[in-house]
Amino acid sequence: MKKLFAEFFGTYWLVFGGCGSALFAAGFVTPTEVHLGIGFLGVALAFGLTVLTMAYAVGHISGGHFNPAVSFGLWASGRFDAKELVPYIVSQCIGALAAAGTLYFIMNGQDSFLGIDNTKAGAFASNGYGAFSPSGYSMAAAFVVEFVLTMFFLLVILGATDKFANGKFAGIAIGLALTLIHLISIPITNTSVNPARSTSQAIFTGGEPLMQLWLFWLAPILGAVVAGLIYKNVLQNHEN
Amino acid sequence: MKKLFAEFFGTYWLVFGGCGSALFAAGFVTPTEVHLGIGFLGVALAFGLTVLTMAYAVGHISGGHFNPAVSFGLWASGRFDAKELVPYIVSQCIGALAAAGTLYFIMNGQDSFLGIDNTKAGAFASNGYGAFSPSGYSMAAAFVVEFVLTMFFLLVILGATDKFANGKFAGIAIGLALTLIHLISIPITNTSVNPARSTSQAIFTGGEPLMQLWLFWLAPILGAVVAGLIYKNVLQNHEN
Amino acid sequence: MKKLFAEFFGTYWLVFGGCGSALFAAGFVTPTEVHLGIGFLGVALAFGLTVLTMAYAVGHISGGHFNPAVSFGLWASGRFDAKELVPYIVSQCIGALAAAGTLYFIMNGQDSFLGIDNTKAGAFASNGYGAFSPSGYSMAAAFVVEFVLTMFFLLVILGATDKFANGKFAGIAIGLALTLIHLISIPITNTSVNPARSTSQAIFTGGEPLMQLWLFWLAPILGAVVAGLIYKNVLQNHEN
Amino acid sequence: MKKLFAEFFGTYWLVFGGCGSALFAAGFVTPTEVHLGIGFLGVALAFGLTVLTMAYAVGHISGGHFNPAVSFGLWASGRFDAKELVPYIVSQCIGALAAAGTLYFIMNGQDSFLGIDNTKAGAFASNGYGAFSPSGYSMAAAFVVEFVLTMFFLLVILGATDKFANGKFAGIAIGLALTLIHLISIPITNTSVNPARSTSQAIFTGGEPLMQLWLFWLAPILGAVVAGLIYKNVLQNHEN
Repeated sequence: MKKLFAEFFGTYWLVFGGCGSALFAAGFVTPTEVHLGIGFLGVALAFGLTVLTMAYAVGHISGGHFNPAVSFGLWASGRFDAKELVPYIVSQCIGALAAAGTLYFIMNGQDSFLGIDNTKAGAFASNGYGAFSPSGYSMAAAFVVEFVLTMFFLLVILGATDKFANGKFAGIAIGLALTLIHLISIPITNTSVNPARSTSQAIFTGGEPLMQLWLFWLAPILGAVVAGLIYKNVLQNHEN
Repeated sequence: MKKLFAEFFGTYWLVFGGCGSALFAAGFVTPTEVHLGIGFLGVALAFGLTVLTMAYAVGHISGGHFNPAVSFGLWASGRFDAKELVPYIVSQCIGALAAAGTLYFIMNGQDSFLGIDNTKAGAFASNGYGAFSPSGYSMAAAFVVEFVLTMFFLLVILGATDKFANGKFAGIAIGLALTLIHLISIPITNTSVNPARSTSQAIFTGGEPLMQLWLFWLAPILGAVVAGLIYKNVLQNHEN
Repeated sequence: MKKLFAEFFGTYWLVFGGCGSALFAAGFVTPTEVHLGIGFLGVALAFGLTVLTMAYAVGHISGGHFNPAVSFGLWASGRFDAKELVPYIVSQCIGALAAAGTLYFIMNGQDSFLGIDNTKAGAFASNGYGAFSPSGYSMAAAFVVEFVLTMFFLLVILGATDKFANGKFAGIAIGLALTLIHLISIPITNTSVNPARSTSQAIFTGGEPLMQLWLFWLAPILGAVVAGLIYKNVLQNHEN
Repeated sequence: MKKLFAEFFGTYWLVFGGCGSALFAAGFVTPTEVHLGIGFLGVALAFGLTVLTMAYAVGHISGGHFNPAVSFGLWASGRFDAKELVPYIVSQCIGALAAAGTLYFIMNGQDSFLGIDNTKAGAFASNGYGAFSPSGYSMAAAFVVEFVLTMFFLLVILGATDKFANGKFAGIAIGLALTLIHLISIPITNTSVNPARSTSQAIFTGGEPLMQLWLFWLAPILGAVVAGLIYKNVLQNHEN
């Protein structure tokens, strides 16, 4: 049960910090037109730091997944029990939704807020492709990017937590891998690699971003499972 | 006594570095209009690095709180003695005030400095809500943000320093958690999560920022205490 | 064989993440002209994080070179076997090429993509000098920069992995050294210090960037070999 | 002797990377007016990473000072032998000068380079006050800033390398302290806290920056010595 609370809080923090920094701080410009906003670089750092900080905070409790694709990838590599998959993923999704609700409440506290405009790419930090990709990338490009990035995310996770690895640094490597992933791909899909994070934002936007949600479950989970199989069969040292 | 000096120097550094980077460097523009300033991303990094650097420098002396809300949160979780609360908080506030005084002296060294204009949001790096929020967020939004962020700050602190955790990395996780917090919330409240930091700046501005100071004691301390109770009752492993 | 797979995946990640962040995210501007792109700072961070993350993920398998110049430098210092040079370098180049191919496929997914314009400096994240240097630096300046930076890159690698050093932190030091190298030199050569990374991009551009490729093999490898000799003869402690 | 080579290479790297990133990359703008430069944030990161990377690379050889003020501060705290002061400082200054010479050679490789204009604040990354402060801060403000920042730099160094501290992380804490120092003070003095770094640049500019060099020896060394005395007398635990 402690594990499920840890996954709840960790995924709340991931969505609150990552999507929150994008919504509140990315494009801040002063009245005199000085651009002080954190941009995509700041958002990328924020997403990564949510995982880095929570990995050291509750990693010793739940393993620190905060992401259904991560749970699937660990299962595919043989390091996570199938019967824990559903409870973990449910906790992650509830945490993400609670964070999205808090973000919505805060956005409402600004007089100029007129509700979420779900006809715009990236509305409420949602993920998308085609007309809903920030730079207009096709569905195929979006699928490849989400697949490849989640695959490498899991290779980093599986490698950095290998018993032969320098495992105490895994929280840094994994958190900063998520920063790197965002540095590459925010303009393409607004970066998911995490179905829970995509779901919480799409439920609040509804409309087209919700219709496109399937890709942000399918591509990351496929990429994660492929990584699990590659790691187990090609990279892992099975000696003792 | 060494502990109180450590808290003094640590909180001085937090205010001097965090508020100083905001005042001197955030919006720097060259005479030919190239924007070289560090923006909110640089300020967020600066605040986090004050804590990261001092955690490794004097954490072994005082535990490295540098923040009354942190002291309250550790007390609520049962890891900090109630009778140390007042001396720690007094040291922190004196350190913060000394730093604010130094910042004021330096600002005076620029010919164009005309004194602090306390009718502007964020004047002298002060915290605020409503008309004193950089992006005009309401008091309720500001309260929720300060409460949630301080609560998670303490969850990171309590988790990362747990005896079952990978504790040597706590300084990195905690410092970068403060960076993350600033990445999210500078546009909302100019980010406090630290009553000492808010107090030192509000005393120098006076006026409305000083009238709003209550929120930046109440919300962070409440958030920290709730985190202490959550951690102790829901996340902590009490076995030996 | 595991080693060669590790080098393949690591170099794929270096090119996909480093060059990908440059191609997709560096200059992103919103329709309302707010600059949210990650700039050279974000690209520098991305390159460094590819190495930092893969060093912790597969460093325990292959040593984590991901770069022919690194393999040569380690060989010159006496820590890497000459007969492993060719297989490592072939794996690195195949990984880099596979990444470049994926990047090209993704770029094609944007309607506005018209193919690579190989008359522009930095096209497809290629390296260059003279008219193909982003800021127009001469061949001599480019050679010196690539030589000096690779030499120091190897000094950091050799020093941080020395048996007398604090070796568990080597992945952080080496990854962030690559970030630092990019912070200095993107405007000069678009930064190589890695012949595999230069080759994969030049093969896709063809034209002048491909004609200039020789410099991005010669200067980095020379710098790396000189560093290997300096470290072994001037800095290394040969006692036991 | 190995120690002096280590100080030479470390200080070369500090000046080449820190000042080089400022000169080549800070204000880069594309022909279509997109600002991709790394700004003061990137320069701050570069300075810090020169120290972080070299601390892990050669810290085990020389202790990794790379700065006359650091050598003085360690001496004042009783951890560095007076008779090593002069050789260390000479090595540091030679390393800094060699780096400045390389930077000058590279700048010459750009057709548009017309020589150093020593009437401008920050020319060739030099330090200054008054009309030579990037934002026009007075001599008194510059002195206070350099004094305070070097004092805290030494407190971080002395604390993080204390035998009771978590010393393996000292390279991270110290390197990132230098980043933090630059985040605060580039607009004030172009940031020194290091007399060797100031000297190498002032020798190349000559003129007023060279006349102002005295402050960038006096203030940092005073701050460092005060820190050494404070640490030894107020913070250090003298028990065994």
